[in-house]
This record gives sequence, structure tokens and C-alpha cells, in this order.
Amino acid sequence: MAPPMFSFEVTKKCPQTKARTGRMKTSHGEIVTPVFMPVGTQGTVKAMLPEELVDLGAEIVLGNTYHLSLRPGHETIKKLGGLHKFMNWSRPILTDSGGFQIFSLGKPGLGDKKEDAGIISVKLKEDGVEFQSPIDGGIKHFLSPESALEIQEALGSDIMMVLDECLHAEADETTTRKSMELSLRWADRCLKARKTDNALFAIVQGGMFKNLRKEYIERISAPPTHERTKARTHQYNGYAIGGLSVGEPNEVMYDITNYCTNLLPIDKPRYLMGVGTPEDLLECIERGIDMFDCVMPSRSGRTGQLHTSHGDLAVKNAQYKDDPNPPDRDCACYTCRNYSMAYIRHMFMCNEILGARLATIHNLHFYLNLIRMARSNINNGKFLEFKREFTERREK
Amino acid sequence: MAPPMFSFEVTKKCPQTKARTGRMKTSHGEIVTPVFMPVGTQGTVKAMLPEELVDLGAEIVLGNTYHLSLRPGHETIKKLGGLHKFMNWSRPILTDSGGFQIFSLGKPGLGDKKEDAGIISVKLKEDGVEFQSPIDGGIKHFLSPESALEIQEALGSDIMMVLDECLHAEADETTTRKSMELSLRWADRCLKARKTDNALFAIVQGGMFKNLRKEYIERISAPPTHERTKARTHQYNGYAIGGLSVGEPNEVMYDITNYCTNLLPIDKPRYLMGVGTPEDLLECIERGIDMFDCVMPSRSGRTGQLHTSHGDLAVKNAQYKDDPNPPDRDCACYTCRNYSMAYIRHMFMCNEILGARLATIHNLHFYLNLIRMARSNINNGKFLEFKREFTERREK
Repeated sequence: MAPPMFSFEVTKKCPQTKARTGRMKTSHGEIVTPVFMPVGTQGTVKAMLPEELVDLGAEIVLGNTYHLSLRPGHETIKKLGGLHKFMNWSRPILTDSGGFQIFSLGKPGLGDKKEDAGIISVKLKEDGVEFQSPIDGGIKHFLSPESALEIQEALGSDIMMVLDECLHAEADETTTRKSMELSLRWADRCLKARKTDNALFAIVQGGMFKNLRKEYIERISAPPTHERTKARTHQYNGYAIGGLSVGEPNEVMYDITNYCTNLLPIDKPRYLMGVGTPEDLLECIERGIDMFDCVMPSRSGRTGQLHTSHGDLAVKNAQYKDDPNPPDRDCACYTCRNYSMAYIRHMFMCNEILGARLATIHNLHFYLNLIRMARSNINNGKFLEFKREFTERREK
Repeated sequence: MAPPMFSFEVTKKCPQTKARTGRMKTSHGEIVTPVFMPVGTQGTVKAMLPEELVDLGAEIVLGNTYHLSLRPGHETIKKLGGLHKFMNWSRPILTDSGGFQIFSLGKPGLGDKKEDAGIISVKLKEDGVEFQSPIDGGIKHFLSPESALEIQEALGSDIMMVLDECLHAEADETTTRKSMELSLRWADRCLKARKTDNALFAIVQGGMFKNLRKEYIERISAPPTHERTKARTHQYNGYAIGGLSVGEPNEVMYDITNYCTNLLPIDKPRYLMGVGTPEDLLECIERGIDMFDCVMPSRSGRTGQLHTSHGDLAVKNAQYKDDPNPPDRDCACYTCRNYSMAYIRHMFMCNEILGARLATIHNLHFYLNLIRMARSNINNGKFLEFKREFTERREK
């Protein structure tokens, strides 16, 4: 029997918290956790070359099933050798199922539409979700649990996600339960539809209700009953926590995350979807999360927001017009080693592409370096101390 | 006495044509000619990092006095250590005088306004030119021959240009003569105003009139008469040909270029401003030009036009949707080594920054490689053969 395409082991546990480091093996190489995954929505981490991501220490990127299946189309990508080859990225790729974009674009307020080409019409059915998008001129599409897997397998994703329904933070318990039952049925159908050996993650839903989160985890992590799913390739390889960062207060997000990681299997990776700020990352690493993705560093980079060790800066502010200093004196990134705030500001004032590039390089470095420091401090048993110092310095 | 900051020598002459190779020394290092200078209008060659330009073999870039003096301001750049430090570029920089932008923005049709933030009001006076620009909200500015030099010296330019008036291709002989007399007086004032040892180039005007071009060259290259200009630092270090590529037919441009290089001193570099297509470069190298600048490779790159050895391609065309081939199979650039037409097209369809980057890398490589091949074929005595093969292949 061939070795499994995917494995995960916890390599170190923090003595004071639930923080942990781990090692994950995928069909495109190994990842150490906690890991931050830059988001490559359209088959590119915006403004960046793959080689630059490697230089920054990115180990895995995220691809968006919704966007890529509509444009250029997963069949096109498959024909061209898969997403890795298409986008010239040889390290692992995690793909979402497309559900979040469809629901968030159909429900203004849940997602950020700025980069997502407008509103689409969405019809939820037991079988899946029917939608139209302005990207391809409003052709009717249908995404089912089975087709979500088929698309992700066509892309050649190393870590696939089940299709789930996503709700607002304000959804009541009845709505959330109804939605959770549907997501559970869809998850089961994904498990059965899976054809390849690549990893498949379940997504824990249940909104802001702990009882529902608990029930969801119990039901989704129960040993499979039907024959096909008893095989190794028909079990979930990890667990994502979904339905957070959708408008709830930070403390609620931390609390639900903490609650979920208390219940999730200890030996499987936990992925908190769409989170978050630098502080969020440390808070949730402390609560036992292994994987993060967020558009924040690249998106805020493109608007001239720079994350630094002494707080966040708006580079366009007039105070930086003549500033010869780099964004962060303590930062070793390419941008900070070579450019002044005055120059980066000038690039933004002139709408030059280089502004977006320099800011994205800096911000991704900041996130990836934060994750590296978190890992090494977990390994050294000094995670809490590191977290306190990092947070205090940024709050000053 | 310190060695001169600038020198030029012809190293090889083509036996059949006026094509020649040369070596130019500047305060920021040596350049071999013929040379193509990527345009860095706002202190950045659009979409590119300086290191990427070095990788592509760029030896010198052009900076725009007009743009940089308005934003962020030459005083700001001087305070920050000069343009080289500001933009993180350690190789030579040539700056224009600002005249071309002011006149072209004030005379719709002469220049390309797309990237230049709109129309400005322009008033020509004996002393210089008064103008307003939307870049800084319409503040009144005055650019004189003296201030054009002062700005370029503040930027730390290695090769400065005199201030001149620029005309349309349609200007009649009376208008052209009047303008030429003014440009000659301004050139003389620039020569006297020069404070540093960095190179200063004259600009040959005279429009489409050979008699005026001849007179201009005779008068501008005549030995200086006034005392100050007898010193080494008060002579022109090279000659630009201005007032071409402003709407005249290609053949006229080639003919005037050829006429001018017959008359210009053999031992000084000749720079044809704002030219041109790949074919233009070879035609004008053949006619004795040493230096070129043009926004074409970077600008057309950003709109998805790719220059290749088998002609120019519009990457957005539907025919490339599934095309697994690189833009140019015979091209060794980063883009062609790593990406398909399908991927580059996808980047453009999604308005991704990476599209502009990949296309700019390819196009600049194409231009810089063309220049390298021209040089080596001049050195090998095979320039005409090379030119014929290159042109035929692109025409197919």
C-alpha cells in the first residue's frame, strides 16, 4: 500500500496553553504549523510572484474554487496541468469549496465584495446551490457537494474543503440548526464523492451556539458507518472552523474557537478560516489553531496599510512625505531594507504598482515572520511571553 | 585634476552602415551602447523592482523631471539622498528637462496623456515656461533653463538634458525657426547654469526641416565663445535628437535621424528621444544612434501587448484561452520560462497586477535583448544580416 498522501503530527505542545507546533505532509511537500496561508484567489497572490512568496517563507497558498471554476474554468486549468503548474507554484495548495464566496456574495455584508465582482443571485436547495455571477455574464451554475469536490480535484488541490452553508453572525438558533443539518448532509456527500487521495477537511459550523458547535463536532468526527467511508481515504484529514469572522465581536470568535478546539480530535490539524489580524493569529494559536488564511496582509497592503511591530501605519498620511525611515526599523523584509516611507508613500500617491508590491511584500513578511516567531516560541516554551511582548509593543 | 565624470568612446563601427558600439562612463558606472533606457517616470519603471531591471540587463533608466519635481518634489528627493537612493537604483540615471511633458500636456496630441494626469495650462515666455498641473492642484510653476538644471542636479542625474521647446510634426518653417532660436538660447543658458560635473546633453531641434536641423547642429556644436563655457564642464557631453516621433511618418523620422547623425560629432553619444518600436530601434541604430528611451515595452505590457520574435501578440485575445505555450518559445525571459499564454491572459482578464508584471518583464527583456543582440552583431560585423532576419521573422 502506498503511503498516505497526507499526514499530520503534533511536534510540541505549549506547557501553559493549547498552542502547539506540528508537521503536515501533503502531496506537494511538508508544512510546519502553525501556518499562515496567503490567499491566491484568482490563481495569484495579488501583486506577488510565486518565487517572492517562497522567499518570504510561504509554505502553502489558498486557491478559490468559486473564482477559478468560473474563470478560467477548472476544466481549462486541469487541461493545462492543474493549478500548481498553471500558477507556477510547486508547494501545497489548499482550496476552499466555493461555498463561502457564493453565500457571502449573495448575502451583502457577510463577505467583502470589493474584489469579487459584485452581487450574484443565489438559490439554496437540498442538492446544492444555484447561482449566477457577473464574472461570466450571468450564466446559471449549480454547485453541489459532489461538484465542489470534482472542481477541487480538477484543480489538483492538496487540501480540499467540504461544501457548507455559511451564515451571518446574527442567525438565530433555529436557522443555524437547519443550516447545520444541511452542512452535515453535504459534508457526508463530499466524503463519499471524493475520488483522490488528497486531503479533505470538514468544516465545523454551528454559528455562535456552543451546543450546536458541540453536536456538529460529535457528529462530524464520529467514526464513519457506511462501507465506503471506512477506508482510509474516506475520512476527514483535518477540521476547519467555519462561520466565524462573519461580524461577531472578537471575544465571541476567540471563545467559540476555544470551545471547538477543546472538542476537536487532538491529532488532526485545525484550520480557522478567514482569520485574521496579527493579534487574532496569536490569540487563536493560543487556543489551539494550526492553520490560518486571511486576505488582510495583501489587501491592506494594496490600500497602503502597513502592519509593523509598533502598530499599523497608513503610509499615505502626510506625516510620511519626507520620512527617510523604513516602515519598521526592526523588520528584515526587502521593503524595509531598501525603501523609505517617503518613497512608498510617493508610489501610493502616484498609484504606482510598485506601491502595492512593496506594501504586500512587507505585510506578508510581517505575517509569515509572526507565525515563524510563534512557532519557535512554542518550541522554546516561551509562547505566552512572546505573545505578551508582541501585543504590548503594537499597542503602544 | 579629477578624471571627468563622463566619457564616451566608440568601440566598433559597422563596416556597411553607421551602426556603432561604444562605451560610456558616468558617475554611477559604465554603459555599453547602443543602449535602451527603460522609462521610470515617477521614480519607478512601472510594475518593476530595480533588482528585476538589473536581472533583465537594464544599464540605465530615465527619470522625468516634470513629474518628480511636482511630486514628491526635487527638494524632497534631494533631502532623502537623491533619486538613486530614493528609488533604490544604483546604476546611471538620465533625466529629461521637463520640457517635453509640459509642452505635450499643453498641446493635446503631441504626448500621451493617459498616464500623465490630464491637461495643464502652459504659457511660453522668453525666460521659460509657466504651467499649472492637476498633480499638485494647479499651483503655478515656472520652469526656466536654469531651474531645469537645478532640478536635475538636485535629483542627482548622471545625464541631464537641456530645456527645449517641443513642436508638433505639422509646425511650419517659420514657427519651427522661431522655436529653434528660443531652444538655442535656452540651451546656452543651461550650459552656463550647470553647477555639477555630471553630463549635460544638448537637444537638436529643427523639426522636419533639414536646413534648420543643419543650422541647429552647427550652432550648438560650435566651440563655446564665452569664458565660462570654455572649461571642460561647460561643454555638451552628448547630443539628443528631439522633435521626432511626434506624429510624422516613420520614413521621415528615419530620414531626419540619418541626416542629423551625418552632421553630429562622431565622438559624442547620440540619443534619439522617445523612439520607438523594435524595428525603429534597429533602423536608427543603423543610422548611427547610440541611445534610446521609450515607454512602449512597459506601457504596451500593461495593456497586454506582447512583443515577440514572431510579431506582436494581444494576450487578451480569446484564441489564447487554453494556450499552454509561452508568449515566445525562443525567449529566455522569466515569463516565457514559467507561464502559459492561458495564464497570462487569465491575469489580464482578472485585472491582476501579476499580468502587468509578467508582460512588462517579457517586453523589457525583448527590448533589452534586442539591443544586446544588435551590439554583438555590430561587434561581429553582422549587423545588417541580423537586422534583416529579425525584421523578416516578425513580419511573417
